Amino acid sequence: MSTNDKELRVGMVGYAFMGAAHSQAWRTVNRVFDLPARARMALICGRDTAKVADAADRLGWDAYTTDWRDLINRDDIDVVDICTPGDSHAEIALAALAAGKHVLCEKPLANTVEEARAMTAAADTARAAGVRSMCGFNYRRVPAVTMMRQLVADGRLGVIRHVRATYLQDWIVDPQFPLVWRLQKDRAGSGALGDIGAHIIDLTQYVTGQRISGVSAVTETFVKERPLPAESSGLAATVDGQTAPTGTVTVDDAAVFVARLDGGALATYEASRFATGRKNALRVEINGSLGSVVFDLERLNELEFYDATRPTTEQGFSRILVTEGEHPYMSAWWPPGHIIGYEHSFTHEMRDFIEAVATGVDPTPSFADALQVQLVLDAVARSAELGSSWAEVEPTLTAARV
Amino acid sequence: MSTNDKELRVGMVGYAFMGAAHSQAWRTVNRVFDLPARARMALICGRDTAKVADAADRLGWDAYTTDWRDLINRDDIDVVDICTPGDSHAEIALAALAAGKHVLCEKPLANTVEEARAMTAAADTARAAGVRSMCGFNYRRVPAVTMMRQLVADGRLGVIRHVRATYLQDWIVDPQFPLVWRLQKDRAGSGALGDIGAHIIDLTQYVTGQRISGVSAVTETFVKERPLPAESSGLAATVDGQTAPTGTVTVDDAAVFVARLDGGALATYEASRFATGRKNALRVEINGSLGSVVFDLERLNELEFYDATRPTTEQGFSRILVTEGEHPYMSAWWPPGHIIGYEHSFTHEMRDFIEAVATGVDPTPSFADALQVQLVLDAVARSAELGSSWAEVEPTLTAARV
Amino acid sequence: MSTNDKELRVGMVGYAFMGAAHSQAWRTVNRVFDLPARARMALICGRDTAKVADAADRLGWDAYTTDWRDLINRDDIDVVDICTPGDSHAEIALAALAAGKHVLCEKPLANTVEEARAMTAAADTARAAGVRSMCGFNYRRVPAVTMMRQLVADGRLGVIRHVRATYLQDWIVDPQFPLVWRLQKDRAGSGALGDIGAHIIDLTQYVTGQRISGVSAVTETFVKERPLPAESSGLAATVDGQTAPTGTVTVDDAAVFVARLDGGALATYEASRFATGRKNALRVEINGSLGSVVFDLERLNELEFYDATRPTTEQGFSRILVTEGEHPYMSAWWPPGHIIGYEHSFTHEMRDFIEAVATGVDPTPSFADALQVQLVLDAVARSAELGSSWAEVEPTLTAARV
Amino acid sequence: MSTNDKELRVGMVGYAFMGAAHSQAWRTVNRVFDLPARARMALICGRDTAKVADAADRLGWDAYTTDWRDLINRDDIDVVDICTPGDSHAEIALAALAAGKHVLCEKPLANTVEEARAMTAAADTARAAGVRSMCGFNYRRVPAVTMMRQLVADGRLGVIRHVRATYLQDWIVDPQFPLVWRLQKDRAGSGALGDIGAHIIDLTQYVTGQRISGVSAVTETFVKERPLPAESSGLAATVDGQTAPTGTVTVDDAAVFVARLDGGALATYEASRFATGRKNALRVEINGSLGSVVFDLERLNELEFYDATRPTTEQGFSRILVTEGEHPYMSAWWPPGHIIGYEHSFTHEMRDFIEAVATGVDPTPSFADALQVQLVLDAVARSAELGSSWAEVEPTLTAARV
Repeated sequence: MSTNDKELRVGMVGYAFMGAAHSQAWRTVNRVFDLPARARMALICGRDTAKVADAADRLGWDAYTTDWRDLINRDDIDVVDICTPGDSHAEIALAALAAGKHVLCEKPLANTVEEARAMTAAADTARAAGVRSMCGFNYRRVPAVTMMRQLVADGRLGVIRHVRATYLQDWIVDPQFPLVWRLQKDRAGSGALGDIGAHIIDLTQYVTGQRISGVSAVTETFVKERPLPAESSGLAATVDGQTAPTGTVTVDDAAVFVARLDGGALATYEASRFATGRKNALRVEINGSLGSVVFDLERLNELEFYDATRPTTEQGFSRILVTEGEHPYMSAWWPPGHIIGYEHSFTHEMRDFIEAVATGVDPTPSFADALQVQLVLDAVARSAELGSSWAEVEPTLTAARV
Repeated sequence: MSTNDKELRVGMVGYAFMGAAHSQAWRTVNRVFDLPARARMALICGRDTAKVADAADRLGWDAYTTDWRDLINRDDIDVVDICTPGDSHAEIALAALAAGKHVLCEKPLANTVEEARAMTAAADTARAAGVRSMCGFNYRRVPAVTMMRQLVADGRLGVIRHVRATYLQDWIVDPQFPLVWRLQKDRAGSGALGDIGAHIIDLTQYVTGQRISGVSAVTETFVKERPLPAESSGLAATVDGQTAPTGTVTVDDAAVFVARLDGGALATYEASRFATGRKNALRVEINGSLGSVVFDLERLNELEFYDATRPTTEQGFSRILVTEGEHPYMSAWWPPGHIIGYEHSFTHEMRDFIEAVATGVDPTPSFADALQVQLVLDAVARSAELGSSWAEVEPTLTAARV
Repeated sequence: MSTNDKELRVGMVGYAFMGAAHSQAWRTVNRVFDLPARARMALICGRDTAKVADAADRLGWDAYTTDWRDLINRDDIDVVDICTPGDSHAEIALAALAAGKHVLCEKPLANTVEEARAMTAAADTARAAGVRSMCGFNYRRVPAVTMMRQLVADGRLGVIRHVRATYLQDWIVDPQFPLVWRLQKDRAGSGALGDIGAHIIDLTQYVTGQRISGVSAVTETFVKERPLPAESSGLAATVDGQTAPTGTVTVDDAAVFVARLDGGALATYEASRFATGRKNALRVEINGSLGSVVFDLERLNELEFYDATRPTTEQGFSRILVTEGEHPYMSAWWPPGHIIGYEHSFTHEMRDFIEAVATGVDPTPSFADALQVQLVLDAVARSAELGSSWAEVEPTLTAARV
Repeated sequence: MSTNDKELRVGMVGYAFMGAAHSQAWRTVNRVFDLPARARMALICGRDTAKVADAADRLGWDAYTTDWRDLINRDDIDVVDICTPGDSHAEIALAALAAGKHVLCEKPLANTVEEARAMTAAADTARAAGVRSMCGFNYRRVPAVTMMRQLVADGRLGVIRHVRATYLQDWIVDPQFPLVWRLQKDRAGSGALGDIGAHIIDLTQYVTGQRISGVSAVTETFVKERPLPAESSGLAATVDGQTAPTGTVTVDDAAVFVARLDGGALATYEASRFATGRKNALRVEINGSLGSVVFDLERLNELEFYDATRPTTEQGFSRILVTEGEHPYMSAWWPPGHIIGYEHSFTHEMRDFIEAVATGVDPTPSFADALQVQLVLDAVARSAELGSSWAEVEPTLTAARV
């Protein structure tokens, strides 16, 4: 970077799990990638003064504020990075776009389709003025995932026939785990469905270039009452002894659905927080007429690729270590075989966001893309409510630029 | 075996894939297991004289016949082993039971619920006269599967929360693969659903001790027209050049469904013949409140077991090599680590069948158990026909003795 | 098989672990493979009348004898199959060859180089009279191993640079496991080295087409005193309580060595009975300038193949399921993905032996090939005795016909 | 961190592969861990002004210098971090210690035993004055490795019987890959042996708490002549066409050796840059009388643990995902299952170094520990030179504080 580099002054709202992950990415991205602009970690926002001050110091932000409106209205902020729970995404994003700030918003875009629509409309309006917006489906930037998409786009899988996607965790199997905000519908919108189901919906649509057209779903809340939390941070939380008052879990613990994709594939999806032993098991397998791919987020440096055009006796799933300089994003990192981790997906996300903003191009996934995911989530919820009857996914007006 | 051993004279109908597998098992079972009766491979039946004569010689049967009624009516036959396509199961089984023969019938029990009901009723009647019957869901006798059931029965998994089961093959991905009998509804009843879907339905119900209560399903026939076969044997077949006449595929290529089990678990099922790269990939994962198990038929000597009662830092999926003398069936075979194959599941099936017949006990799975699987298949087909609407599985009157 | 088939009347000496494995193979081979001769299980020999009578009945042999000289001298025996401990191989084989019987001898060929030399000389003499001989390194006939050899022979690995081979078991980790014959030098010749080390020496030389030219070795006996066995069978044995008298272990528990192959490769070998958790872990990896292969006997249906001529971004170890009809030996068995087991390697061995004998061709591995393995074992033992100094492998006069 | 935090001003010499990795760690460590001192990236040193200026800007250092003596002599530097090739370690470290700077030196400690001895003596002298020193065997701080050591230390593996360790790469298989400094003895000391072999020597001694007492080794240089590089950076390099002049490779391409550990275990070691398909395959397996562990750096978030005290039927290698908050270092990172990468081992190294320096404790591995590794490397080289004869490892006077 030269001293003439353009600077993008970032203001981030939220400092918990996503805030820490984004901070690590903002701090790293220009140290690793050669980009036309340099991110400055200018301002962090949170409601609790002591905590946000501590977060600013610890995570490396120049300053802090307790009022997100202040953050949005400041002239010295170019980018607003929204890392709050889903119930505040819409309000903050709308205000930020109206103020002419580029917006990076964590997924899911919003808690409701209505909010997502409004955000998409605002993003379209702002785009005309050169204001960029992006939704943070970070797993698109895991190199193996980017490579999967490329293989499909290059026709290496032929006609896609099957998608099977699971995102399995087990962090609330214990019925004494407390009722954190992620288990409350008014804060989180939904449970496993929106939190982790959204990831596999976006990822499989991104990789296949196809959209889910309809679903039939079942959801379940296995543990319906939980103790209220004494304190929580990220995914962790504590309870005050056995005498803690309890509250009702208002979101799904698990969601399973079958689906059709608009290119003709059948699909199964499962998102659960009750899959004992599965910690962060986002797994996707895609079968096409010419080949298949398999991805597992717990081994995110690997991609299994089956090429059915090889001689019969030599066909097999190849475990590709996606760490070569020729693989997406990897020339910036370490030599082959020196693996990267979860956080790098955010660094890659910031890389692409910075480049898009600096060069005046729309980053992806757009708010419209994220709205489409929201429409799938909505169809899943509708099907589950109506006894698993088939639910068509409502079409978006804007074509996704996946 | 002493010369006083009771002899069970077996007559087998059919000599293709299943016939060869059963023959290998009948030939081996008394050489490996110490049993109260000895199977004699007395008679094999097929319609083509030359072929059945050759099969008798090759597979090791004392004699052959071209008329299954002849086989059933002979006094010197104690057991009728039915290895034909599903459309003849009912007729042969009913006649055999009426003739007082013990019957072992390949799965699925029948092509329709009606046939399966009639067979179950006949089996119940025959049971009163000491005539035994069993349906050949051989995978129950893979040692790792038997062990899975034991772990669940012992409470090691706690409350079952999730079942995910796939049975994936890829033998008809090529659209030029011919229209063999397994692709014809009148012969096979259904496609992937009844052929391989039936296996994962039975296996997961057997392991969990729970029954599927309802489903929502999607099925698809990806390749709707295929050339007629010149010749076929087992799963292999040939076509006469590019000029072969074509016919319509009348069964499903793939079936996917979500389900609820009567013990409260959510489940996903997928059976497909279009999963490129997956050859015989019956995979089952079961998550409970205390642990999880994973099984893969392509690595049938292994069982992955996650025990959530272990110390947190040491929890992990343990790859258990199910080849110890203490494991089900394995004391009869080789030292630890010397693996067994697919065919051994049949040898174990024959072992249990012989023992049950010789000791006057009902073998499992019974025809009633198999009828219940048929009722699940029927619910899946109904749901798929009705646009994935929820279909309850019709209850059986007889409690399954799984 | 037609009634005109040539019959090969087999007499087998020994009925323990190897006897059972060979019996299963002799019983099966003509039922599965179409061969120019049919094996008849004519006669089994053991010293204990009651036990051998029981074995004959259980394993399916027509008759039994307690005198191996009787077996060898009978006119109605064509093939002598030697399944005894190594200390009797030479005497039996020499007598059998002198009597004009074709000989199949279990590995290792003998307990000493001198015996192996005598046997090889006798085999050469007998060959002139059309008498065939073969040493039973059965793992050569695991389809994945045969395929490995073919890949190397076809140049797919380029110049071989590295061989790493381990054969790890753990059946005597318990110091109370008794002093069975395999732990006695006068019976077994050596310990892990000759029992399982011999397998990886033969297998890697077979696959690479290169011979070990020199070694530097370390051997160890971790548990030097053990209780005498009350009874033993195969690898299992029992002890009479805690008061059993003890004896000295006179063989190695583990042997490790580095080696050079005559084609320029470096190699490491390890054979151990003290590798806790490893049951039958014969693992081989071979790296060449153009590719690599990996094999694991506990997953014997799989071969990992890395093809470095593929595009950089797509290179990876492919897990090939060696169950296609196009794979070695597999067209005789089940459809793709339906795996075979340990015992099938013997069935394939008998297949090739029968074919060679019936068509008048020398089967491999010859006694000369097995002598060469013995010379490697000898070099390992010499190096270990001389403080790991480098030991050249003595050349054989006859070129191996691997 | 509060404003009263102690600051450690770091000066780093070198800015290539290790320099980039260390920078990422210095930049991150205080953002993630709560430590008694804060590292300041004060000064970076390199010989090429333009390149070091660029590196300072890119990697985030306050200033740069082209003279490492200047760096060492400045008052405002507390820590000297040596990331240069091995031939300059001794000179820089000795000067830094003499100047009273705490020293972190990359591995291997030096190119010769003599240098390592001098450095160790200097470190011992400096220690008396409160000056700390540490050698950067970063893999000790991979959480799964730290956990392995703890399991052994807790007696969970019982008596260690076997160690097998490989560190396999393939980056110079291509004979046209140029003669970079790592292939020159005067710069690098040795080839695969010191570069990657040193890692597995240190790691296995650290984990087992045992030292290698003697070795028998073979080394090889497969490609003896290579083109001179036009430009190189990290492990990558380019050549000017086919006409480039060539030079002689003066280091080993691969080193294999058998060893005895002073606690009674047998071991095999292999380090190679010619293992096609293996990118960064540091793999270690340790077998003890009560259990075994397996580690693979390409899947560094996983540890396989076999606990032989479990019931026989449930024993198996457990794949532990070492990402729980209870695992070493992991509470600072992401939720369970969100994996970390290669670079995190350096962040953990800096964490422990900062803590040790700030609290006045000696960090490990000490220079004495690293000298002991050097003595093993020396024994390997001696054995290889003397035709694989056994070479005892020279004892160190100071007991290692592993």
